[in-house]
Amino acid sequence: MRYELYYWPSIQGRGEFVRLALEEAGAAYTDVARLSQRGVPALMRILEGKSEGRLPFAPPILKAQKLVIAQTANILLWLGPRHGLAPKSEPARLWAHQLQLTIADWLVEVHDTHHPIGGAFYYEDQQQESKRRAAHFTAERLPKFLGYFERVLQREKGNWLLGKSFSYADLSLFQMVAGLRYAFPRAMGKLEAKHPRTIALHDRVASRPRMAAYLASPRRIAFNEKGIFRHYPELDVQ
Amino acid sequence: MRYELYYWPSIQGRGEFVRLALEEAGAAYTDVARLSQRGVPALMRILEGKSEGRLPFAPPILKAQKLVIAQTANILLWLGPRHGLAPKSEPARLWAHQLQLTIADWLVEVHDTHHPIGGAFYYEDQQQESKRRAAHFTAERLPKFLGYFERVLQREKGNWLLGKSFSYADLSLFQMVAGLRYAFPRAMGKLEAKHPRTIALHDRVASRPRMAAYLASPRRIAFNEKGIFRHYPELDVQ
Repeated sequence: MRYELYYWPSIQGRGEFVRLALEEAGAAYTDVARLSQRGVPALMRILEGKSEGRLPFAPPILKAQKLVIAQTANILLWLGPRHGLAPKSEPARLWAHQLQLTIADWLVEVHDTHHPIGGAFYYEDQQQESKRRAAHFTAERLPKFLGYFERVLQREKGNWLLGKSFSYADLSLFQMVAGLRYAFPRAMGKLEAKHPRTIALHDRVASRPRMAAYLASPRRIAFNEKGIFRHYPELDVQ
Repeated sequence: MRYELYYWPSIQGRGEFVRLALEEAGAAYTDVARLSQRGVPALMRILEGKSEGRLPFAPPILKAQKLVIAQTANILLWLGPRHGLAPKSEPARLWAHQLQLTIADWLVEVHDTHHPIGGAFYYEDQQQESKRRAAHFTAERLPKFLGYFERVLQREKGNWLLGKSFSYADLSLFQMVAGLRYAFPRAMGKLEAKHPRTIALHDRVASRPRMAAYLASPRRIAFNEKGIFRHYPELDVQ
């Protein structure tokens, strides 16, 4: 079976968490909206309810034959056990999912550093509010989230968030560190030394053969100022 | 087995979505932080990593014997099938969870109407930003989310979000409508007539015997201006 992923074609965004899992799994998938032939209109048809299956609110959307799944964490919940990216026991799966949902919360806060008033306004129209929110993010929220994952890694006593079991949550934490380094190099530069386990996990994920190949390929879209992780130097002044 | 729920004692907040499920299930549970004897310190011990089990980032937290689960949607994912609040088939469970995660996204946007700059600042210190964000929320985001759930109810052809199967997602949509009516009576007053299926679902949930008993009991904390749904008239002017 070949999966179909539907996500915006020019950004990493939330879709990247799914792409990382598919790539690490070595799964066959088509990144539909990036195809010049079908492209974004195919994604729009799903969002407009013109295709079969249950109606999603927003991408990413994964199609697996007749199954249409949306919400990043939900997609990973389903993909994980099918591809060795989640453990078999129910408590461990709930734990992986809990970590993923915490990362999802963190990601919203990253997004809101440049869009505190709302997605409908350009960054330039909410820049002053962004400066205030980003200062709060880099001073308080970023250390809080990094500190949480560092403590988890310390308690779990292994290379990964689930101890000895590698999971999609590790891929997602890698993505957070990569994105935060891009968006807030100055803030991260000050914080990394205090979070050695988290940084080591990032490096460990990046050096896995399939990840290294993916990150070096044209399939990995570069971070840019249309995505969630944006580098605006004026928001990285702490 | 008696569950233990750990959540802030003076607000509905995210914990309310779990309380509604436990009440509708008729499950035995202790709302730990509301006990005068043990109270909030017991919750704080978990957050500080001083108790056994995996470390949660934030409440609500559900303890079921040795299992410690956090993240609202994750708790409901686990509780649902155990109490007849989620269907048995995997696609239907994923769908219920997907809807719950969409409600979680919506709830963040409600919260951010009064805290667009961050939770560390008082509302009074971000009131101007709140007015701008709330205007965007009531004009665009609120109709978008309500319209989405209305379309889902139309497509599923039944009384509930999963068609004929009642689920925890229905309880959560009830809670959204109840909270939005409290926080934005003016905006909701204009929108309700356009979303009759959603409003009918709210009423249907409220009249279920266990829900009606719960809502009339002192266990249901009143909406207030410390919670997520806050009534600030100056934010409800659309």
